[in-house]
Amino acid sequence: MTPRLFTPGPVPILPKALEVMSHPIIHHRSTDFIQVFSEVREGLKYLFDTQEEILILSSSGTGAMEGTVLNLCSPGDEVIVVRAGKFGERWGQIAQTYGLKVIPLDISWGEAPTGAQIEALIKKYPTVKAIFLQACETSTGVDFPIEEIARFTRTQDLLLVVDAISYLGVSPLKMDEWGIDVVVTGSQKGLMLPPGLSFVALSKRAWARQKTSTLPKYYFNFSKELKAVLENQTAYTPAISLILGLREVLKYYKAEGKETIFRRHKKYAQAMREAVKALNLELFAKNPSNSLVSICVPQGVDGKKIITLLRDEYQMTIIGGQDQLKGKIIRIGCMGYVGAQDLISVFEALEKVLKTLGANIPVGKGVEKLKAVLGKER
Amino acid sequence: MTPRLFTPGPVPILPKALEVMSHPIIHHRSTDFIQVFSEVREGLKYLFDTQEEILILSSSGTGAMEGTVLNLCSPGDEVIVVRAGKFGERWGQIAQTYGLKVIPLDISWGEAPTGAQIEALIKKYPTVKAIFLQACETSTGVDFPIEEIARFTRTQDLLLVVDAISYLGVSPLKMDEWGIDVVVTGSQKGLMLPPGLSFVALSKRAWARQKTSTLPKYYFNFSKELKAVLENQTAYTPAISLILGLREVLKYYKAEGKETIFRRHKKYAQAMREAVKALNLELFAKNPSNSLVSICVPQGVDGKKIITLLRDEYQMTIIGGQDQLKGKIIRIGCMGYVGAQDLISVFEALEKVLKTLGANIPVGKGVEKLKAVLGKER
Repeated sequence: MTPRLFTPGPVPILPKALEVMSHPIIHHRSTDFIQVFSEVREGLKYLFDTQEEILILSSSGTGAMEGTVLNLCSPGDEVIVVRAGKFGERWGQIAQTYGLKVIPLDISWGEAPTGAQIEALIKKYPTVKAIFLQACETSTGVDFPIEEIARFTRTQDLLLVVDAISYLGVSPLKMDEWGIDVVVTGSQKGLMLPPGLSFVALSKRAWARQKTSTLPKYYFNFSKELKAVLENQTAYTPAISLILGLREVLKYYKAEGKETIFRRHKKYAQAMREAVKALNLELFAKNPSNSLVSICVPQGVDGKKIITLLRDEYQMTIIGGQDQLKGKIIRIGCMGYVGAQDLISVFEALEKVLKTLGANIPVGKGVEKLKAVLGKER
Repeated sequence: MTPRLFTPGPVPILPKALEVMSHPIIHHRSTDFIQVFSEVREGLKYLFDTQEEILILSSSGTGAMEGTVLNLCSPGDEVIVVRAGKFGERWGQIAQTYGLKVIPLDISWGEAPTGAQIEALIKKYPTVKAIFLQACETSTGVDFPIEEIARFTRTQDLLLVVDAISYLGVSPLKMDEWGIDVVVTGSQKGLMLPPGLSFVALSKRAWARQKTSTLPKYYFNFSKELKAVLENQTAYTPAISLILGLREVLKYYKAEGKETIFRRHKKYAQAMREAVKALNLELFAKNPSNSLVSICVPQGVDGKKIITLLRDEYQMTIIGGQDQLKGKIIRIGCMGYVGAQDLISVFEALEKVLKTLGANIPVGKGVEKLKAVLGKER
């Protein structure tokens, strides 16, 4: 059996991207690279649904999150941080590291903030400079209503900063149309590449704020990066092989059409959720994402063992909960280069594993439902 | 013709590393990855010649340089920065960004600092906390006498911080034996990988200093990374495919023996230098590195055209000077996976290009000398 990843990042990589990453690399100041970069630049604008430039950083998504804080804020700035999982807490930790005043909006893990909650908080704290949140909180499998939230933020003098690391490339995110100020993502999720690249796009008002920010930065200096992007370059030596792979991914999105790909992931996630219900298992996420499904570990079953058995017996990697959710949930991703057959395989294996571990489930019903929803999906 | 890189980073990649980078990736919290990481951890200690742990960061070398400043310093610290080229200036810029008091040791580009100069400066500024310099200043092709300099620093209460980005893996650097406090490097030079990873090793006294440093850091938090390394992990999602490639590179170093590889690069560099002299051309570097050769552009020849012609006619990428050296020098690297035949090819092409551009050189003499010095070197 070939080992398969069903984790919410890293994910299976686009085969054509894997292939080009085994070719000899080119120099990052060469005319060939400038050509690659200009293609990538256009492809990213298509995917981010924006006319703005997208910065390409060589770091994990966390690096891009930190860079975003460093470039938008100044010491003492008041910021709202939505904490509904591990990655919301990370925004808060970064903001606190740099001396910002964090106004937390704490939401039960598994739930999403509403536009009304954000609106109320903006009214209560009128001097807030920015709101930091997720589009998909990977730790819980919950999508946040970004379009709705943006309705309350885009008319105010504050920035809406969206970590779309586990979201972009899977579900529609219309940066310009919705009025999002900053979109951050990484290479190893929806973009079906290995980890190592991160991306940031800023709206015009975010760029205006960037110019006034006084937090010190060097490697993550966005004005330096923007200057380089306009010359189809990066400020520092980039992860060249990943950028070569990225070109293939962006060609793939363009050829298939991003809406087609988004629809496919939506159907995948829906099929997984219905399969979970058909097994009489409980979904953890209240506003579930199309990037992954989070499933409550059934009473009396060792959550860790589900993962170990899937790995040892079926060479399939899924993942458990983080921090307070350790042992309580399992998470199965449908980001990256996955197909209907992959999802059927992992649910077939999951049913057997759960049965082995003593769960009282109607074996076969999950896969049956999954197949029914997936229909002719490839 | 296959395009070939002769730039001082990025460099030709080890074929076996290229191959594994086209395999599907594994999850960074899996037992498989922990196994890979533990092998890589040992291999890096062998290459850095140290008993200390080596941190693996997902960033370019500049990110690791910034991380080093952030983890060792506190605002107002007095530091010596050796500025003998573009990368020495970069240490200075980073230090200034974070409010350190920079005592510059400005050296003419093309020359190296001496141990005596460092000793004199330490005596003059006894409260200096650290010295930042290069092992090889890539912009000029000069190696610094690190072993000699360390003799003056290791007995004082200050840290010797060495950017070995264009040095490690090419020439011997005995971190523990020489008494270097911090070694920084990147993946895309001596390590014959694509760019995207950087590495930092700290001595015990550097770790002690790290604990007292008050500059804020999040992504480049070395204590968090050390904790992760001890569990064969990284703090944040790493550039997994590059780490899989790194394992192959480190196996290669171990199998060949690092000293054998260092001797080979030494001979390559020596052969290139003698070939340059045989062509009556002038070497730019006073204490030339084994990582690259920097050659003065002959009078009346357009330096930029040398590079363009080599690229367009021979598919070979070399590079010119940076900043004040633009148009004045050309640089040819012998880092990474290069062999004697590659060097012969690039010199054959270079001779023809120089002749075409009107340089008065004894065509053929360079390659003849190169072959004589290389002898049976493969």
